[in-house]
Amino acid sequence: MQNLTQDNIMVFFLALGLLLGVARVLGEFAQRLHQPAVLGELLAGLILGPTILGSFSPETSAFLFPQEGPNAVALNAFTTLAVTLLMLVAGMEVDLSTIWRQGRIGLKVGTTGMIIPFLLGLIVALIAPLALGRDIDADPFVFSLFFATALSISALPVIAKTLMDLDLYRSDFGMVVISAAILNDLIGWIIFAIILGLIGAGHDNNILITITLTLTFAGFMLTVGRSLIHKALPFLQAYTRWPGGVLSFALLLALLGAAFTEWIGIHGIFGAFIVGVAVGDSSHLRERTRVIIDEFVSFIFAPVFFASIGLSVNFITHFDLVPVLTVLVIACVCKLAGGIVGARWGGMTKRDAWAVGFAMNARGAMEIILGLLALQAGIIRPRLFVALVIMAIVTSLISGPAIRLILRLGKKRTLLDALSSRLFTRELQAFSSRMAIHELASMACDAHGLKTSEVEAAVWEREETLPTGIGNGIALPHARIDGISKPIVAVGISDAGIDFDAPDDKLAHAIFLILTPAQDPDAQLEISSELAKLFRAYGMTERVTNVKSYTEFLALIKSSTAETNPA
Amino acid sequence: MQNLTQDNIMVFFLALGLLLGVARVLGEFAQRLHQPAVLGELLAGLILGPTILGSFSPETSAFLFPQEGPNAVALNAFTTLAVTLLMLVAGMEVDLSTIWRQGRIGLKVGTTGMIIPFLLGLIVALIAPLALGRDIDADPFVFSLFFATALSISALPVIAKTLMDLDLYRSDFGMVVISAAILNDLIGWIIFAIILGLIGAGHDNNILITITLTLTFAGFMLTVGRSLIHKALPFLQAYTRWPGGVLSFALLLALLGAAFTEWIGIHGIFGAFIVGVAVGDSSHLRERTRVIIDEFVSFIFAPVFFASIGLSVNFITHFDLVPVLTVLVIACVCKLAGGIVGARWGGMTKRDAWAVGFAMNARGAMEIILGLLALQAGIIRPRLFVALVIMAIVTSLISGPAIRLILRLGKKRTLLDALSSRLFTRELQAFSSRMAIHELASMACDAHGLKTSEVEAAVWEREETLPTGIGNGIALPHARIDGISKPIVAVGISDAGIDFDAPDDKLAHAIFLILTPAQDPDAQLEISSELAKLFRAYGMTERVTNVKSYTEFLALIKSSTAETNPA
Repeated sequence: MQNLTQDNIMVFFLALGLLLGVARVLGEFAQRLHQPAVLGELLAGLILGPTILGSFSPETSAFLFPQEGPNAVALNAFTTLAVTLLMLVAGMEVDLSTIWRQGRIGLKVGTTGMIIPFLLGLIVALIAPLALGRDIDADPFVFSLFFATALSISALPVIAKTLMDLDLYRSDFGMVVISAAILNDLIGWIIFAIILGLIGAGHDNNILITITLTLTFAGFMLTVGRSLIHKALPFLQAYTRWPGGVLSFALLLALLGAAFTEWIGIHGIFGAFIVGVAVGDSSHLRERTRVIIDEFVSFIFAPVFFASIGLSVNFITHFDLVPVLTVLVIACVCKLAGGIVGARWGGMTKRDAWAVGFAMNARGAMEIILGLLALQAGIIRPRLFVALVIMAIVTSLISGPAIRLILRLGKKRTLLDALSSRLFTRELQAFSSRMAIHELASMACDAHGLKTSEVEAAVWEREETLPTGIGNGIALPHARIDGISKPIVAVGISDAGIDFDAPDDKLAHAIFLILTPAQDPDAQLEISSELAKLFRAYGMTERVTNVKSYTEFLALIKSSTAETNPA
Repeated sequence: MQNLTQDNIMVFFLALGLLLGVARVLGEFAQRLHQPAVLGELLAGLILGPTILGSFSPETSAFLFPQEGPNAVALNAFTTLAVTLLMLVAGMEVDLSTIWRQGRIGLKVGTTGMIIPFLLGLIVALIAPLALGRDIDADPFVFSLFFATALSISALPVIAKTLMDLDLYRSDFGMVVISAAILNDLIGWIIFAIILGLIGAGHDNNILITITLTLTFAGFMLTVGRSLIHKALPFLQAYTRWPGGVLSFALLLALLGAAFTEWIGIHGIFGAFIVGVAVGDSSHLRERTRVIIDEFVSFIFAPVFFASIGLSVNFITHFDLVPVLTVLVIACVCKLAGGIVGARWGGMTKRDAWAVGFAMNARGAMEIILGLLALQAGIIRPRLFVALVIMAIVTSLISGPAIRLILRLGKKRTLLDALSSRLFTRELQAFSSRMAIHELASMACDAHGLKTSEVEAAVWEREETLPTGIGNGIALPHARIDGISKPIVAVGISDAGIDFDAPDDKLAHAIFLILTPAQDPDAQLEISSELAKLFRAYGMTERVTNVKSYTEFLALIKSSTAETNPA
């Protein structure tokens, strides 16, 4: 086997490390600003690629990310594998049964949400292909098909994430949107596979054979293949190491599916996507297997892939306002129209229909992958690619806020949102419940400009009625307060422990004072039950008394919340 | 970026898929035969490499695993990354505090277990280098150093796994062995890093600089670096997505560490290993992060890496009995001597000392990685490489059985060992506890040639004394029986449910009849508590009534066992 030299390996690790590091840091920043992580990850590529680093220091850029030679090949192999696994995960999120359950309306939304953008895209692309950024050598028909597909697909992972954030994922509204998006993506990727087949036709296969093979593969995997996998999973779980058996099986199928679709003449990501749908659909797939694949891919492979996108194009020199605005406007108009028409047709209210439109409008990662492939296949020019990336980002960014606005949703209350370093004391001075409440109430009132005496009286009155030591070493004194708009949680740790009259007779070592708005009757219960659940876990009380700072406290709460609520 | 062609990508995915698939299947087979998985994974490489596939169909071999060109580079990049991540995981298993706790004896065993093989290896290698298989062009001194190191390192991951299987990991005996092995590995890898530095010295660095940088890096990472990481982890858990933040952080450090050590002139795996030690040592690293990295690496990267080893050498043509036996005998003698001398010196009994010797003797994966690097660096010839691989496998294989024999250990009783498809009935006919016991006892007695009436009477007598419905929908009727040598568990599922007088008043839907040997008073309690723990999990009762076959039942029990006992 040809060996990379020591220098090659060093550069390879350094390049991977930089892509991963910068992408993850900016991805986290994006999330802190309530934006999708992919935004930061793409930005990392802009920084490390020709757009910024390449224009300031071409030598560094050529050293880290050479255009040819072993290192170019190695990085390309890694990112190809990364996007293939990303599509496996995207496929695993597709739930075929959802389509059947919310079938009628979802089918309508999915159909109009597909057909309207597709036809509009086809027309625009046929009228003004070069203005949009068709590659001069590309076949006009192929280009138009591509542009139409690019406008009509959705981004299932982004949509699912947005709905989860808004707590709408398991609602009827959510199911309609998700089932429509699944339909959209499935058909969209099949059409795109066919487009790639059309380009690769000169390669060595005949177009018709490619199309037939593509449809046969998809059809087979979603029926026979799916049921074979469903039968194989219990067998693997029973007779191989767990979860390793299933983990390897899923990746193996994805690799073979990808190899097969590459052989057909279409891209491997289609094979991985279809395999993902088939594997993810099995009710035998345990949550833990799903989580391991998902987390490794989302936090390692995906960031490197998205950052690597920026390496291929200079986003500044290829930025052209005309196609950017054209694509953005057409994309929004036709997708909104498609979603709204379908939703109204399915009998939804006008308000809900608009929300459906904005939900379906998010293009996210899928659009970018599609665009990159089209760029590499020579269908489009860099400036259209840049326009597609910007459109994908903007449509994803406006989706969540627009739905929230249209459906007039409140923010979800979580414990994590209510915590703050100003409302934390590592060592309570108090040795009685009364004193502890005074101490925590003073802290909360100082920070939020409330009257300590009033708050304290309200909390104490509640405490006297029914003590709030709930056992497992925690106490949750609380009150509903006028004049605050969101919940406030003040936390005090006591090494000695304070008697809050808990049913298990244990002293409370962590005291959470929970103040909730008077007009929000559910907030207190939600936060209390989250805390009670957290502290049922073995060893939590000991852990919480071991923290030394607010950061360590927050780290404990956050990682334990994730463990008690696996994604 | 240079793009792989469609054919390249297809071959890349196919090659990865084949390596992963064959390696995992054979790895699972090896485990079924109670052998380490790595044995099967290496065998996969023999089958796919020049040894077998290459000699039967050179064209297929050249097509899938070409010696040069983009595909050779891509696969090489992947396997290099794989072994680097494998070393990260190996490093994460090192627990520095263990060394201090079992310090005194461990230090003695570690020291003699290192020095005796090292000196013996050095002498043998200086006397008969070419007979062993030194590369003719290799420096005799470098070769001798390598051979001495190869004999003196242990394989911490293999040893840890063996001790866990024998239920000795957390015993004093286990801690002595583990702390000695940690010391061995740490010093062994530092010496090997220096050897690589000696070879690479012509490269562009001076030997002394390389050695100084290596020691400085190791020293820095294990002190300042370790404490910085320990401080960074709570921060990452608190302020980034969890577990993604920590996951990316660990991989990022491993990549940068690897890049740095490559730059120094030694191999990247050393950097990843040291980073692993530093990260894994932090008490802030939560179990879930560890598990995700471990499982993804163990079940995806490691199998592909071990299978790829077989691609580089023809194991049949380079098999030579003289070095194979010489290396094996010397390796066993000197490592046993080292371990025993150290253990006796530390005050252990003769019996324990021999067991320590066999435990330390396991070379496993570490030896193979070391050998492969030496082969690639031109220090050794393929036939010594083959001898080292065989020695690594044999010493690992005999380790567990030898310890079991010496310490006269019984087999650990687990629920999974006691289950069998012959002792499972999906639909119990019974509608009373008496009938259910009769039905299950008949099934168990038929399968094992016992007298149904006696067994039934014993179980029923126990049942009348104290009903065995323990709640959560399960019942555990049981008895201690003469004439059986290991526990028998017969399982019946009842959709209607049977009253076993459970404290929660629920009917039992899964009835486990547990028969244990009369001379083994603990077996029944161990199995019962395992079952009770399993069925405390939310939704288990519903799940168990949803199974359709023994395979599905076993799959459920196995995956749930793994979930309630994270590795």
